[in-house]
Amino acid sequence: MNATIYRSAINIAATCGLYLSLSMLLPMVTDLYYGHPDWKIFAISAFMMGGLSLATAAATRAGPPPFSKKMGFLVVNLLWLVWCLIGAIPFWMSSLKMDFAEAFFESVSAVTTTGSTVIVGLDHAPPGLLMWRSLLHWLGGIGILALGLFIMPYLRVGGLSFFKLESSDSGDKPFARMAVYSRAFILIYVFLTVVCAIAYNALGMNRFDAINHAMSTVATGGLSTHDASFGYYDSLPLLWAASFFMTLSSLPFSILILFIVRGRLDTLKDPQIIVFLGYVVFFAVAASLYQRLENGVPFHEALAHSFFTVTSILSTTGFASDDYTSWGHFIVVLAFIATFMGGCSGSTAGGIKAYRIIILFNFVRSGLYRLIYPNGIHAVRYGPITVDADVQRNVFLFFISYMMICFAGGLLLGLMGYDALTSISASATALSNVGPGVTPSIGPVGTFAGMSDPALYLLSFLMLLGRLEVLTVLVILTPLFWKS
Amino acid sequence: MNATIYRSAINIAATCGLYLSLSMLLPMVTDLYYGHPDWKIFAISAFMMGGLSLATAAATRAGPPPFSKKMGFLVVNLLWLVWCLIGAIPFWMSSLKMDFAEAFFESVSAVTTTGSTVIVGLDHAPPGLLMWRSLLHWLGGIGILALGLFIMPYLRVGGLSFFKLESSDSGDKPFARMAVYSRAFILIYVFLTVVCAIAYNALGMNRFDAINHAMSTVATGGLSTHDASFGYYDSLPLLWAASFFMTLSSLPFSILILFIVRGRLDTLKDPQIIVFLGYVVFFAVAASLYQRLENGVPFHEALAHSFFTVTSILSTTGFASDDYTSWGHFIVVLAFIATFMGGCSGSTAGGIKAYRIIILFNFVRSGLYRLIYPNGIHAVRYGPITVDADVQRNVFLFFISYMMICFAGGLLLGLMGYDALTSISASATALSNVGPGVTPSIGPVGTFAGMSDPALYLLSFLMLLGRLEVLTVLVILTPLFWKS
Repeated sequence: MNATIYRSAINIAATCGLYLSLSMLLPMVTDLYYGHPDWKIFAISAFMMGGLSLATAAATRAGPPPFSKKMGFLVVNLLWLVWCLIGAIPFWMSSLKMDFAEAFFESVSAVTTTGSTVIVGLDHAPPGLLMWRSLLHWLGGIGILALGLFIMPYLRVGGLSFFKLESSDSGDKPFARMAVYSRAFILIYVFLTVVCAIAYNALGMNRFDAINHAMSTVATGGLSTHDASFGYYDSLPLLWAASFFMTLSSLPFSILILFIVRGRLDTLKDPQIIVFLGYVVFFAVAASLYQRLENGVPFHEALAHSFFTVTSILSTTGFASDDYTSWGHFIVVLAFIATFMGGCSGSTAGGIKAYRIIILFNFVRSGLYRLIYPNGIHAVRYGPITVDADVQRNVFLFFISYMMICFAGGLLLGLMGYDALTSISASATALSNVGPGVTPSIGPVGTFAGMSDPALYLLSFLMLLGRLEVLTVLVILTPLFWKS
Repeated sequence: MNATIYRSAINIAATCGLYLSLSMLLPMVTDLYYGHPDWKIFAISAFMMGGLSLATAAATRAGPPPFSKKMGFLVVNLLWLVWCLIGAIPFWMSSLKMDFAEAFFESVSAVTTTGSTVIVGLDHAPPGLLMWRSLLHWLGGIGILALGLFIMPYLRVGGLSFFKLESSDSGDKPFARMAVYSRAFILIYVFLTVVCAIAYNALGMNRFDAINHAMSTVATGGLSTHDASFGYYDSLPLLWAASFFMTLSSLPFSILILFIVRGRLDTLKDPQIIVFLGYVVFFAVAASLYQRLENGVPFHEALAHSFFTVTSILSTTGFASDDYTSWGHFIVVLAFIATFMGGCSGSTAGGIKAYRIIILFNFVRSGLYRLIYPNGIHAVRYGPITVDADVQRNVFLFFISYMMICFAGGLLLGLMGYDALTSISASATALSNVGPGVTPSIGPVGTFAGMSDPALYLLSFLMLLGRLEVLTVLVILTPLFWKS
């Protein structure tokens, strides 16, 4: 690994850091508009971080970067780390008096679109800071979509990518196509946010809340402007609207892109969509029935809250409408298991993801058949496609690392003094970028404010690991990566 | 699948059922010796079940069975099911007034060498019944060792087998070698039990307890003759002795066989042994330090109890010296994670097992290297051996099925009304054949007596799944298996 690579990687990260610093002007304007003195924090942060980024970018300026896989891994890790660090500055300096571990945790949670918070008293928090959280979510969402669309296929980490799925398009020139897609992708992301905000506003949120929650929703983030999250509004139509937009945001973005660019919906054939929607409906109906039969909740209410809760967890958003940890043991186990599962590949959702679950299932089926008939042909299928050995290997690699890291994270949290379910649930919810855990303290109506600094740093690390599909981070932690 | 196969499979299972029925004479003699009226239960059970088995065996008598893989899977499943059913009869008919679900659970727990119990008041239970539990453990241990040594390699379920490991011996004739090994294996098993019983007796157990606990120990079973398990004796030397024998029993039996047959110890090079002993020591020392530093327990006491507890869980035995769920959150998480890990392949221990964990780890390492250098050669190693694709696939198959079934089992238990940690821990402890869970109700000082019949049947199924290395049972549940 030579100096040019470091130089280029730092240059790219610093350039992106500059843009992120400039984006602090939006929360600054928000604070000015609402007359909150914290606008100065954003002005100073933007100036300081922008200046630092600009200087760093200038000092490392070079020709077009020498692109390689190593370079790719380095840039992605550095980029997310720089975003999280710059994102933490306004929290750290704000009137909320957060220490650095808390500020960093809140920033990582926002950038990775996790949605865990350490802030208690959101209802009276500075509006600029609330906007900053939503903006970090929103930009983090763009970041992860771009990563999934353009970088991960090259690094071979993400598994099945959108471009691989539509190999029938091979007549096009790839770069021209990429430009069209990136433009479409940004437009749709903006469009979706606007529509979501209008819907929330129409259903009773004030304009500020609607914009913030819309940014949080399309990024499957989960940070809210109220301590009670969606519970604050006490409105079933709002829950249904949020369920709809959360579900939409955890489907592969390529569906929407292809629909807009080419006016076709044939990516709907992608099996992960059917499976994902299938387990959303199955879990939500199971939870509704349980709520109706065990707790006597009226069915229409049970259905709205259950769908909201289940889509919130499976889409790895993490909004809450109610304290579901008090609904009953079944719901807690269901939420715990749903935390691992996640949304679709090619979306802003985290977790193991539906396409991996499909491949794991089909691998087990074909493996059992092979045990009976060792000489038969037992391909692992993904819808109409045969999953090649390379993709299978990546899925195993992800799943094994994921489970091991989740357990290791839980063990460390246990050592820090948290009870077993809190420890393992916190580890899983961070790694899956869901947000809340399944015990009251860190659950839908709790926060991570009570956790110690080492625990917050550990969880921040797990959120980053999860957001970058685990392997991207693990790769740069191997000694081999750093050998030249 | 033709009728001959069913006929032969039933014949083999019935023949083994006959032997098991005859073995009821031992608890009968025990009850007679101690003057307990339940001896009649065993006489009647032996007569009824023996007669039924004999009649069935006679009715299905045929020439040498047409051996095939399908036949193998069928026989193994049928055999264990028949053992569990016959084993349940004395519990069901005994003076303890257990319903059938409880009796079946207790029998499955004994045969699969799990060690969970639904009996409260062991200290005053009929001695014959206590002996019956130990005997089922002991025979279940022989069964699983024979399965691992002679059947699993043929079914290709067990992964790395002892005979594969010592391919340098290929000069021998395999059947002659097998006969020598089986004789050696039974002798060593008996010898180990006797030595263990003498040690326990010398360290303070009465003769009856010593024999029962020795049978339970070498089978890594875990059923005790006292509600307080090893806590009853309040003796540190006894804990150390049990730790030693539990560890020995979770090492590959082939070490002992090769040592006796050939007087050599070179199977010690098997990496799973080093790794297994490594994590026993690591976990035990971590637990001791925690007990010393957090709870102020004197170090020699903390060390004895920690080593005992850790070896008890990792060897999947399940004896208890104390209520470790009250030692602190760290210990609970540690016990929870240890529940999954298990002992060595080729022993009576269950769980994921050390050799699979090694292969999974090395797979992740080689996978990360491959992401950096896709064109390099990145073999998955197991000590000096390169793990071929077939063995890797079996390890993934096992691991994925194991985790999915553990979660599914937890979800069902949650639906039956148990809290999240109890549900998932019960599912894991059954699947790993450990015994106790990590929550007070089903923990080291608790029992499964409070569980509903559906929960007991579910857990019985999970114990059987785990004991037969999961895949053996899953295979016969696929529709393909039943197509002719």
